[in-house]
Amino acid sequence: MSLEIKKIAVLTSGGDSPGMNAAIRAVVRTCAFHNIECIGVYRGYQGMIEGDFREMGPRDVNNIINKGGTILKSARSKEFMTPEGRKKAYNNLKAQGIDAFVVIGGNGSFTGGLIFNEEYGFPVIGIPGTIDNDIYGTSFTLGYDTALNTVVEAIDKIRDTASSHNRLFFVEVMGRDAGHIALNAGIAGGAEEILIPEEDMGLDRLVESLKKSKASGKLSSIVVIAEGDKIGKNVFELKDYVDENMPEYDVRVSILGHMQRGGTPTCFDRVLASRLGVKAVETLLEGQSNYMVGVLKDEIVLTPLDLAVKGKSQIDKELIRVSDIVSI
Amino acid sequence: MSLEIKKIAVLTSGGDSPGMNAAIRAVVRTCAFHNIECIGVYRGYQGMIEGDFREMGPRDVNNIINKGGTILKSARSKEFMTPEGRKKAYNNLKAQGIDAFVVIGGNGSFTGGLIFNEEYGFPVIGIPGTIDNDIYGTSFTLGYDTALNTVVEAIDKIRDTASSHNRLFFVEVMGRDAGHIALNAGIAGGAEEILIPEEDMGLDRLVESLKKSKASGKLSSIVVIAEGDKIGKNVFELKDYVDENMPEYDVRVSILGHMQRGGTPTCFDRVLASRLGVKAVETLLEGQSNYMVGVLKDEIVLTPLDLAVKGKSQIDKELIRVSDIVSI
Amino acid sequence: MSLEIKKIAVLTSGGDSPGMNAAIRAVVRTCAFHNIECIGVYRGYQGMIEGDFREMGPRDVNNIINKGGTILKSARSKEFMTPEGRKKAYNNLKAQGIDAFVVIGGNGSFTGGLIFNEEYGFPVIGIPGTIDNDIYGTSFTLGYDTALNTVVEAIDKIRDTASSHNRLFFVEVMGRDAGHIALNAGIAGGAEEILIPEEDMGLDRLVESLKKSKASGKLSSIVVIAEGDKIGKNVFELKDYVDENMPEYDVRVSILGHMQRGGTPTCFDRVLASRLGVKAVETLLEGQSNYMVGVLKDEIVLTPLDLAVKGKSQIDKELIRVSDIVSI
Amino acid sequence: MSLEIKKIAVLTSGGDSPGMNAAIRAVVRTCAFHNIECIGVYRGYQGMIEGDFREMGPRDVNNIINKGGTILKSARSKEFMTPEGRKKAYNNLKAQGIDAFVVIGGNGSFTGGLIFNEEYGFPVIGIPGTIDNDIYGTSFTLGYDTALNTVVEAIDKIRDTASSHNRLFFVEVMGRDAGHIALNAGIAGGAEEILIPEEDMGLDRLVESLKKSKASGKLSSIVVIAEGDKIGKNVFELKDYVDENMPEYDVRVSILGHMQRGGTPTCFDRVLASRLGVKAVETLLEGQSNYMVGVLKDEIVLTPLDLAVKGKSQIDKELIRVSDIVSI
Repeated sequence: MSLEIKKIAVLTSGGDSPGMNAAIRAVVRTCAFHNIECIGVYRGYQGMIEGDFREMGPRDVNNIINKGGTILKSARSKEFMTPEGRKKAYNNLKAQGIDAFVVIGGNGSFTGGLIFNEEYGFPVIGIPGTIDNDIYGTSFTLGYDTALNTVVEAIDKIRDTASSHNRLFFVEVMGRDAGHIALNAGIAGGAEEILIPEEDMGLDRLVESLKKSKASGKLSSIVVIAEGDKIGKNVFELKDYVDENMPEYDVRVSILGHMQRGGTPTCFDRVLASRLGVKAVETLLEGQSNYMVGVLKDEIVLTPLDLAVKGKSQIDKELIRVSDIVSI
Repeated sequence: MSLEIKKIAVLTSGGDSPGMNAAIRAVVRTCAFHNIECIGVYRGYQGMIEGDFREMGPRDVNNIINKGGTILKSARSKEFMTPEGRKKAYNNLKAQGIDAFVVIGGNGSFTGGLIFNEEYGFPVIGIPGTIDNDIYGTSFTLGYDTALNTVVEAIDKIRDTASSHNRLFFVEVMGRDAGHIALNAGIAGGAEEILIPEEDMGLDRLVESLKKSKASGKLSSIVVIAEGDKIGKNVFELKDYVDENMPEYDVRVSILGHMQRGGTPTCFDRVLASRLGVKAVETLLEGQSNYMVGVLKDEIVLTPLDLAVKGKSQIDKELIRVSDIVSI
Repeated sequence: MSLEIKKIAVLTSGGDSPGMNAAIRAVVRTCAFHNIECIGVYRGYQGMIEGDFREMGPRDVNNIINKGGTILKSARSKEFMTPEGRKKAYNNLKAQGIDAFVVIGGNGSFTGGLIFNEEYGFPVIGIPGTIDNDIYGTSFTLGYDTALNTVVEAIDKIRDTASSHNRLFFVEVMGRDAGHIALNAGIAGGAEEILIPEEDMGLDRLVESLKKSKASGKLSSIVVIAEGDKIGKNVFELKDYVDENMPEYDVRVSILGHMQRGGTPTCFDRVLASRLGVKAVETLLEGQSNYMVGVLKDEIVLTPLDLAVKGKSQIDKELIRVSDIVSI
Repeated sequence: MSLEIKKIAVLTSGGDSPGMNAAIRAVVRTCAFHNIECIGVYRGYQGMIEGDFREMGPRDVNNIINKGGTILKSARSKEFMTPEGRKKAYNNLKAQGIDAFVVIGGNGSFTGGLIFNEEYGFPVIGIPGTIDNDIYGTSFTLGYDTALNTVVEAIDKIRDTASSHNRLFFVEVMGRDAGHIALNAGIAGGAEEILIPEEDMGLDRLVESLKKSKASGKLSSIVVIAEGDKIGKNVFELKDYVDENMPEYDVRVSILGHMQRGGTPTCFDRVLASRLGVKAVETLLEGQSNYMVGVLKDEIVLTPLDLAVKGKSQIDKELIRVSDIVSI
């Protein structure tokens, strides 16, 4: 890749997550630090197609490091899934003299970048931004740590009222395909049971476990459930089942929903975003591309974008055992 | 009421709310300050019936002022609604030498206390503890200010993701019969519309208002809905209606649920709880009873318990107008 | 005052406080609601002198209701204390066709507005914005409730470590002339003693009280001190005194400092700001001026600006008694 | 080590940190899970000397996972530094039939355990609990992540008022020997400069950097300073120096102090505490001892206790470069 990079675009794509603004800030300022121009693309790939660009200097990203959401907005673009859409996007990038782009998002956003690169040889770097932490090649995605704390704070509040009334709460958290949030926030929230997509505990074992928990002297209980749990029932059906089989419990349901996607990012997410943003730009400046920047084993590392897309992020199975022990 | 008070019981009853522990602490310590014995009754009126009592000194309420929930637990007691149940409760109180009790709770709890007093002439003082702020005779109930901040923090997070995606969110908050939470948290959360039980805005006006809001350049919107809103549809039916009539919006629903009942109480709730707890005990010591202690026009005041139960707490209608103006 | 108001300026002046942005938003949008132009003045009276003005429409105040600080910036202006400075300011206002202004700030800011009005007959409305709550004519100033919660959260954290080590902490909070913050946050934080400018408890009584507290079985203690406390020693001298006279305590000092001035405003401050902003503009539109808008006895009220400046805000002395009781 | 472990003691020692309670809970419940007895030792090694023991079952650690501080209290014990003190401690442990202990604390606490082990062959496991993150053999200590977020939240508030007034703030954070907190919280807080013990930037470079920052259009600045920074001046002397050399700035100082040690632990600290607590007990049950349990490269690992004590925790120097770039 002998191309000299003089102008880099940055965009956020897919679901937003806390820390995206901190990453935008880092990309913009790393460009300025290396005397490279930086262009913000609004509304993800859709904005790339529509030419919704704006020059960004270091002062344009003042005071955004602590803001949730993304100042560049995000969107899902059906048009970018078509060759025509990508053609328009490419033409816009060239017309602006943009040499490479950094896309902050999840798997779908990386796939878009990968296809775009295959078609046009356009240098792309991905920064993993999603609360679900379900991306291969990084131990932590941007927004995950913040979402965990949002969930744990909500569970803490729910526990106040649960233990005042000796109730059982089912708390549904995000995670259609991955149990990272449920498993970690469940342990931290002191949940009695945690239902995740990666493991089918079965209804009988759930009820048995709750009965054992009650017998051990616990007066209230919290069960954390990932959206995509494998038990094959939604959270209200679960409630009905337990209502029927454990009449001794007063069961309530709480679905935490979209508040998990917002909020001021934690220190961890801000620092990670800063490090990944710097690395993304400098990787491009070193003439490399088609990587995702991530953090593995305490180090900032590069993973080929196609591996990041194809790979499967694994939960730490040992955490299931830890949860079983500390919820005794 | 010539009886000299030497021993006072305290209980929490009905739904729990942040600040109840601060009120328990104030009751217990005010008793100690005046060299009166204090007895904690567990699980509300049900614990009174079952004799679930414990002596409480000032050190037993250390470090609870900042805890949500209630260390005395709460419950709804069907048995206390029967003459037999109340008879048992009375016998237990007399057996313990208890001369009066302070009940922290809402309307149902006060009604229980009132009937008990009518039957046995037993001195009772009520402290208004509920997040709904729907009690006559006080401008603020314990837990209301905390719940407002919980809701506003959640809306702030939802707004992050709403404005990143140009979405419309329906956020359902507590308030079956009263719009206090929805109205105040809606204004503070910058909601475009607020639907409350006290006012039927109608579906057409809602859609019209949202269209106007969109036309004015707003890219995302939040509508706050009290559980008991008068529009006659639940929040998912509302979503369907808007989906159909405003296809330009991507509509999402978030139901905040029970987390609104928990959490560390705010400064306001802790100070109010302290003041009401002191006043409750001192009112009994002055030989008065059957009052609710509350705060009106910046003053701690007494309202006869039967008036508190019969009266209706009103929302400040001017706030509806303020909301219409500041959401322009 | 028969002048018809068509253009209103808004500025923030003096120390900033959380809620100022919510008030700016309310002023701007109330102007828009009534089809009046609104001009933002940057950096307080200094910006007025320098003509640092910007037109503000409803979309310019999007997403600021939850931001601490002030988007209009603030400053203390020595030049505005001179007739020449005020002359320049007046000329700038007239050149812009501005008919009146709303100033958000404290006593000094109101005094400036008052003198300006006396000299030029220029209509002025004040909105009380200061964390100190030391303004006559309102029970609550903007930012006060937020600052209270900031202080209480800090005390909660300090108590964690205080009780882990059985230590005595002196926590200094803001309040040079007024003990509102110390008194309320002290009660809510469970402080053993509270030292305020309004009352001189004396060193001997402080030590005596701490000894009594220790004797009663308390293992750790927190003493909250307003900057302007009357005991005549600064917080480090106090520590030395107690170190010498109570060697049984391990004494530490924490000065909370400027973080008390910032942060996301609470629900209370945002609603109050919205109500005061609406009232400020509508008061001008009704042809009235030279008032401060405030809240007294649960009602939005007007106080003549000269009274607001001359009057003295009083602490609620009953709270001192409440503190003595609940800290037993 | 052929001894079969049937009874394990747990204590917290040295400065407390958020997450210690979560670790105590994990130790107690892992013992219960493996049908081992668990004894809580109060007030660290001093309580061991005084025989301040209490049996702990799984219900004794209900609802403490989210509490700052330590329910076992902590203390620094001079007596344990003497052979006589340790002899008493040993006798107490043997009298109780205790076979091993888990000590949660920092370097000093580990040294105590190590000497004790050398003298009596008593099995010891250390869990790193300190906000300073200055322990060799673990990437994260308990309480560090929580402290980082406490500091960042404080800086966010200070920035609100800094940018409203165009001020320069020196914010002093904990870290006498290590810059971990300053460096990470400084990056996350958007600090313009960060002064740490590991690097001497010199006064001239500081002033030069601030001048450059001002010239680049930044109107306010935050400099984060670790207690033990190498510049050789305390924070007030720094202020004086900058006051003199940069009269264009209005400089303020904020010392965050002991609030950094308290607070509800973050999700990260609670999960880490749970994992380390489980590992500590199971390591003993496997017949191993004299290790510290920690987390390195995303894995729970054992480090010989003497290495943990002798080793030096290093900051990530790359973070200094990241800070220089993103603060441009």
